[in-house]
Amino acid sequence: MFRFESDYTEGAIPEILARLSETNFEQTAGYGEDAHTERAKALIRKACEAPDASVWLLVGGTQANRTVITQLLRPHQGVLCADCGHIGIHESGAIEASGHKVLPLPSDQGRVTADQIEEAYTAHITNADADHMVQPGMVYLSHPSEFGTLYTKEEMTAISAVCRRLSLPLYIDGARLGYGLSAAENDLTLPDLAKLADVFTIGGTKVGALFGEAVVFTGDAYCRDFRYLIKQGGGLLAKGRLLGIQFETLFEDENGEEPADAAATRYCRIAAHADRLADRLRKTFAAAGFEDAYPSGTDQIFVKALDEKLESLKKEFAFSFWEKADESHSLVRFCTSWATREEAVEALENALHH
Amino acid sequence: MFRFESDYTEGAIPEILARLSETNFEQTAGYGEDAHTERAKALIRKACEAPDASVWLLVGGTQANRTVITQLLRPHQGVLCADCGHIGIHESGAIEASGHKVLPLPSDQGRVTADQIEEAYTAHITNADADHMVQPGMVYLSHPSEFGTLYTKEEMTAISAVCRRLSLPLYIDGARLGYGLSAAENDLTLPDLAKLADVFTIGGTKVGALFGEAVVFTGDAYCRDFRYLIKQGGGLLAKGRLLGIQFETLFEDENGEEPADAAATRYCRIAAHADRLADRLRKTFAAAGFEDAYPSGTDQIFVKALDEKLESLKKEFAFSFWEKADESHSLVRFCTSWATREEAVEALENALHH
Amino acid sequence: MFRFESDYTEGAIPEILARLSETNFEQTAGYGEDAHTERAKALIRKACEAPDASVWLLVGGTQANRTVITQLLRPHQGVLCADCGHIGIHESGAIEASGHKVLPLPSDQGRVTADQIEEAYTAHITNADADHMVQPGMVYLSHPSEFGTLYTKEEMTAISAVCRRLSLPLYIDGARLGYGLSAAENDLTLPDLAKLADVFTIGGTKVGALFGEAVVFTGDAYCRDFRYLIKQGGGLLAKGRLLGIQFETLFEDENGEEPADAAATRYCRIAAHADRLADRLRKTFAAAGFEDAYPSGTDQIFVKALDEKLESLKKEFAFSFWEKADESHSLVRFCTSWATREEAVEALENALHH
Amino acid sequence: MFRFESDYTEGAIPEILARLSETNFEQTAGYGEDAHTERAKALIRKACEAPDASVWLLVGGTQANRTVITQLLRPHQGVLCADCGHIGIHESGAIEASGHKVLPLPSDQGRVTADQIEEAYTAHITNADADHMVQPGMVYLSHPSEFGTLYTKEEMTAISAVCRRLSLPLYIDGARLGYGLSAAENDLTLPDLAKLADVFTIGGTKVGALFGEAVVFTGDAYCRDFRYLIKQGGGLLAKGRLLGIQFETLFEDENGEEPADAAATRYCRIAAHADRLADRLRKTFAAAGFEDAYPSGTDQIFVKALDEKLESLKKEFAFSFWEKADESHSLVRFCTSWATREEAVEALENALHH
Repeated sequence: MFRFESDYTEGAIPEILARLSETNFEQTAGYGEDAHTERAKALIRKACEAPDASVWLLVGGTQANRTVITQLLRPHQGVLCADCGHIGIHESGAIEASGHKVLPLPSDQGRVTADQIEEAYTAHITNADADHMVQPGMVYLSHPSEFGTLYTKEEMTAISAVCRRLSLPLYIDGARLGYGLSAAENDLTLPDLAKLADVFTIGGTKVGALFGEAVVFTGDAYCRDFRYLIKQGGGLLAKGRLLGIQFETLFEDENGEEPADAAATRYCRIAAHADRLADRLRKTFAAAGFEDAYPSGTDQIFVKALDEKLESLKKEFAFSFWEKADESHSLVRFCTSWATREEAVEALENALHH
Repeated sequence: MFRFESDYTEGAIPEILARLSETNFEQTAGYGEDAHTERAKALIRKACEAPDASVWLLVGGTQANRTVITQLLRPHQGVLCADCGHIGIHESGAIEASGHKVLPLPSDQGRVTADQIEEAYTAHITNADADHMVQPGMVYLSHPSEFGTLYTKEEMTAISAVCRRLSLPLYIDGARLGYGLSAAENDLTLPDLAKLADVFTIGGTKVGALFGEAVVFTGDAYCRDFRYLIKQGGGLLAKGRLLGIQFETLFEDENGEEPADAAATRYCRIAAHADRLADRLRKTFAAAGFEDAYPSGTDQIFVKALDEKLESLKKEFAFSFWEKADESHSLVRFCTSWATREEAVEALENALHH
Repeated sequence: MFRFESDYTEGAIPEILARLSETNFEQTAGYGEDAHTERAKALIRKACEAPDASVWLLVGGTQANRTVITQLLRPHQGVLCADCGHIGIHESGAIEASGHKVLPLPSDQGRVTADQIEEAYTAHITNADADHMVQPGMVYLSHPSEFGTLYTKEEMTAISAVCRRLSLPLYIDGARLGYGLSAAENDLTLPDLAKLADVFTIGGTKVGALFGEAVVFTGDAYCRDFRYLIKQGGGLLAKGRLLGIQFETLFEDENGEEPADAAATRYCRIAAHADRLADRLRKTFAAAGFEDAYPSGTDQIFVKALDEKLESLKKEFAFSFWEKADESHSLVRFCTSWATREEAVEALENALHH
Repeated sequence: MFRFESDYTEGAIPEILARLSETNFEQTAGYGEDAHTERAKALIRKACEAPDASVWLLVGGTQANRTVITQLLRPHQGVLCADCGHIGIHESGAIEASGHKVLPLPSDQGRVTADQIEEAYTAHITNADADHMVQPGMVYLSHPSEFGTLYTKEEMTAISAVCRRLSLPLYIDGARLGYGLSAAENDLTLPDLAKLADVFTIGGTKVGALFGEAVVFTGDAYCRDFRYLIKQGGGLLAKGRLLGIQFETLFEDENGEEPADAAATRYCRIAAHADRLADRLRKTFAAAGFEDAYPSGTDQIFVKALDEKLESLKKEFAFSFWEKADESHSLVRFCTSWATREEAVEALENALHH
């Protein structure tokens, strides 16, 4: 059985396991106050070209989203979000459990636009009953989006400009950021993001780490007392160095040195591997007559296919069912990752050619 | 200026004011532990033909909705609700502030169906990732709906049956219940509601009281420790007798006696007045070429009309703007109420005839 | 039976009932956007000598406390409060339900000191694990305190100075403020409070109104978007004018005119009546050998007395049991109010003389 | 520098790191639906002699406490807890952020008694204003306590009996459970706990794992839909197998086989090492004239010592400052752990002998 159902079916890149072993008996302070965490944060700031950014390392994505959104919103505010956004659909109501409404915007291929944000905000403030409604208090985007698609630099610049004009902090969920940064089509760099977003995450869980999401506040405006909220949300790892060691390893270059730029980090290099294999699979799916529902160059492939064909693939391959498309077709997801082996891709290619 | 913008532009029926004056220097225990509250509850149980119902008197509608929903849901559950539902749109995120997601269902003229409820529930429990999502934990309906339309007895019976089969408590928001019970088209009685719902409210604020919503739990299953939640939610009125006196007055007959049935209560009699005037206005609007967007027999009239015509009406009449319908038309609401005077209706009729 | 168990056993001062009747058929906008509410706010600002204060009218005390505290705190902050404070003991966990810890300070006769506040704050910020703990984010006091005692102007000035130095907003719960302002011993005026507090309430429920608490933000720093929070908390009364009419009546002078100063308002005049009767009772209790546990000049009298004596009083008088003091004595509370009649006091005096 | 400041200054036992490396490229399903997690749960049920227990693996202790307490309480309920309890003091208000009050009980050496629980419960239900207060809804204990002390089997049996009689679920926080189970004085076995508690945790973070807390529901009564709450609370690790692999390793015997009993697990064996070294240090501290503030046989040692002596120890040893004891003394904590080396203990012994 080859598993393509998600990008977190394996452990971590071997360099991380090696580093964990090497450092295992070092004695360090807890809760992220150790030298590894400090170095990881410095490497991230470097890769972001954001020397003043405030960087935090959390364990998981739902935790990061919940904690950041709790940090940014006042009690009467909600978060604007694509209707397919992870926080609105797949986090068991974590945002509502923190007291806030997710305000969905219709999305195109997983993405929303600057105009939509402005319209939603304007509709609110011009409503005679505005204070009987939830006030939009921030914007949440995923890049890559839930469906693996990407914002262009132009689109994101426009979104950022609207958000700043309206004083809506812009938060970008980068659970799969590496796969976005490394995609052939991508023109939005890590330093760009650090300029355009107010907060964003750099996902480790799906990109080479055992676990871990770095939260980057790009300025001073919104990070006050964030550590209290991490602790309160259950996200302050006692052995914080585990996060430090992992992100330190991911944000070095392949020789363990400070990298020249983001592209030279292990983080981006291992992601490029996944994107390359995904592109290869995309061509095979197209040749086999599977429709690509959300064309992109990142590691997630959403294809619409005949149910009987999918039935037969299931014997050898694990993939994710998304939804019924019609009577005889379904939408399914195949993921590659930093860990995907060429032979797995070849096996799938062989199966698709028949 | 004649005001038709809502059904709470006046104070209360004169019998309530008289009763407040008569009882003003009675000394009673606080927090609803007085004889007036006891009698009001008994009269409500009587009108509902529900001798075992548990009745509570709260000040306002948002408060009642928030408190009931907090009572019924566990932390991971949300509330199924028409997409136009009051709790989802017009309560400033009160439900989310209590930790729960409002799960919107597309509505037809403000109403949802038993099938929609069943489909939403089934979609959830058959989803492979169900526990990454919000679990539907109850159903919220308004009767009359947000747009004044009514459920038939058949429709509500089907909804109730589905809810019981799926163990989803059914909560009916009756903020304008009187106007529904008294509508010519209505075939759903108060005793019917008490059989079909698990909890419902009987709105006083819009139907003759200064303020007040009665919350009726129709069985034992869901009302445990409800008084703690009322207090915690800020809804336990110190001088609870004010609520008792008002509901006692509303649920007597016109002679201050125990009424023969719900229809004989002051509550239903004063509502019938509003419905009659609304029906009269509906005919006038139709004659004047205004389109009735949500036909019903209750006190709210939603009409689509030419903006310039509305502009000229505004000089003499207050009404509510709902939304732009197209370039040159808007949807607006006119309400009658227990307090609407015939001459106000006549003035509006005259204005519409020109 | 004469009831002394609380100061909310009757309805409202007759002037309020009369005004409600006079205005009953006025048509007004809802939610506090009416002329009565506007005038009430202006009269309150006048009495406070605070022309720029932001005034809001809410229905009840728990609601006001919960809404104000939600407004002032960030998620990781708690509220410093006397250990006997209403929010910590008698509001069913309303503050915690809003996400915040009540941080109790040992109290002396119901009061805390500027030094205690400073020490608690300093202990927090100097703790190496501060961000594993709840950050003190504001101070809550009651004046009169839970036990009817009063802060002197000097004490309150010191508290206010500490709060401003530490950037801790100071919130004063004035549920019984009238009885404090009118007490013989009091030297803290309404204008003083408006200078020293950041937010405070002027309680109507216990001082002549049917219900209602005015929330006064004395500056711009903390009131942003407060109306959203009132609505979300279920505190935005549909017929807001009912609050306007009541506070307008309370903050006029006895001729219905704008009063010369706070002391000339109906609010303070009716409270003075209660304080006078309480002082008279205090002397009687002392003569009868009951120990005054919390000496003050306000309307609450806490006395320690022999259980058998209390047993016999119970036949004719209602009062509140507070706690067992020892084997044979209990602490109980007698309240007077604006509505207490001389003959009730006489009856109690007679009973105590035997 | 030798670090004794906590029991989480190192990584994990080498067997865990080896196992992570061995399994790194296995492809497994996410979110704990893998064979390692299944085996870990089976081994834990085995060690607990509780074949029907429901076992869950979470990342951290605050997360586990917050999630379990959210699971057990209704909105108006609070959690009875020793006044020094972790949830009340050191979790940044996580419980209050979930809506619940921590109800502190005075503790003796970190422990509370069955009588105290019964008294608190009885005081609540017999209070005339009970529903104005927070209802005790569960009991939280730590074993070992915050100060390392232990409950005897007799004490815990009495607590459990009271809790069951009063229908208060009993939750035991076992963040350092291994060090308790392995202490010479301990007479409370893992199977005992599984009989006496309704829910308890088995801490991995401080006892040999990189991270991880097992939550054990010992019966069916309280675990319904717990997985939703884990996800909502941000505690559902994507690569859940990491927790499975760690607990599987900890709950095998030293040969990687199913152990004969709890004492034969790696978990207890490594804890015994820490307890042995702690006992050795305790004797040294006593000989050096340091007062043992909380005598116990577990891995935490709280000693009161002269500040100048502590100052000189600080140069070579890290330990935790707890509080000033008096002018010239402080209370400090030294911890051993599974990772403590004999030479570190010897170095400290040498320093203390001088």
